[in-house]
Amino acid sequence: MRNYTNSLESLIRKLTKLPGIGRRSAERIVNYVLSAPGQEVKSLTDAIILAKHKVKLCQVCSNLTEDDVCSVCQDPQRKKDMVCVVEEPKDVISIEKTGTFDGCYHVLMGSIAPLEGKGPEDLRIKELLTRIEEQGIKEIIIATDSDTEGEATALYLTKMIRPLGIKVMRIGLGIPVGSNLDYIDTTTISMAIEARREMF
Amino acid sequence: MRNYTNSLESLIRKLTKLPGIGRRSAERIVNYVLSAPGQEVKSLTDAIILAKHKVKLCQVCSNLTEDDVCSVCQDPQRKKDMVCVVEEPKDVISIEKTGTFDGCYHVLMGSIAPLEGKGPEDLRIKELLTRIEEQGIKEIIIATDSDTEGEATALYLTKMIRPLGIKVMRIGLGIPVGSNLDYIDTTTISMAIEARREMF
Repeated sequence: MRNYTNSLESLIRKLTKLPGIGRRSAERIVNYVLSAPGQEVKSLTDAIILAKHKVKLCQVCSNLTEDDVCSVCQDPQRKKDMVCVVEEPKDVISIEKTGTFDGCYHVLMGSIAPLEGKGPEDLRIKELLTRIEEQGIKEIIIATDSDTEGEATALYLTKMIRPLGIKVMRIGLGIPVGSNLDYIDTTTISMAIEARREMF
Repeated sequence: MRNYTNSLESLIRKLTKLPGIGRRSAERIVNYVLSAPGQEVKSLTDAIILAKHKVKLCQVCSNLTEDDVCSVCQDPQRKKDMVCVVEEPKDVISIEKTGTFDGCYHVLMGSIAPLEGKGPEDLRIKELLTRIEEQGIKEIIIATDSDTEGEATALYLTKMIRPLGIKVMRIGLGIPVGSNLDYIDTTTISMAIEARREMF
């Protein structure tokens, strides 16, 4: 029994590492790569390399950007004194898609996860506290995931921020317990932002 | 409302051109590209470029290969006088996966599709007739898809090959009508090869 050539088999294996791509999908992509015009395939690999190369983290909030500061932080229309704290850059996009939040963001770059050896010092919490002091932030909305790590992170943040005398909120009603923000539809996220409750 | 940066949006658009990849899957792949080590992403793009560059068509049967002649044609164990005719290189892989066919292949590189302006002269039919004459082939198994174009191609091939006085068979029982070979499970393909019937 003979199957794909070495270079195709190697490509299939690499493709199956991508999220949501199984063996069958990888084989279909390989067929596309072989039958598509060379120019189109090159434009795809170039786009991957370019994205990997160009995209960096915003110096203010760690959101994805191609400049030093991201488009949200640069936007004069956005309220600079209301900051939504999320775990990952992709969470910013999930919230932006709702179109209902007009404040700024702070990306923690993860959550407190002792099992993975990740403590508060590994997150961008110090940077958040500095921002609160220097930028006169009045309200923090904690939008970490509603799983164990996300809730632990929310509690920790509240403990750190409450003494600074500003409003600490948690996005609320609407997020199913134990889920990841990344998978939730925009209406639910929208509702959750609307129904934010004060952290106790 | 702000979403992905330009280079990320461009990459997402290119990814959605891949078969089976929608907007959501493309976004997840982008997140993978951004968070994966640079070396891993490079190894993926290199694999795509290498596959596109290295893989060509077998000079004998048009199957995929990295050499001049494919591994099936090179294999002394394979019966050289029994040739299975398929539409696309990926169909060879579908049949090879069953592990039940020990002949060789001939890939037509398509099927007769008048609606797409594709006639018999656009397929590798002349090459097949030359092979039959020069290589002493005794049996042809037509394994084109069982859709309209595939059946038309099978009829045309029969009309051309029958006068040469060799056996012309069609893979049979087991293939659901109107389907593409590419999607069928190995057992069904295996049965279809076993139950091949003579073409009338």
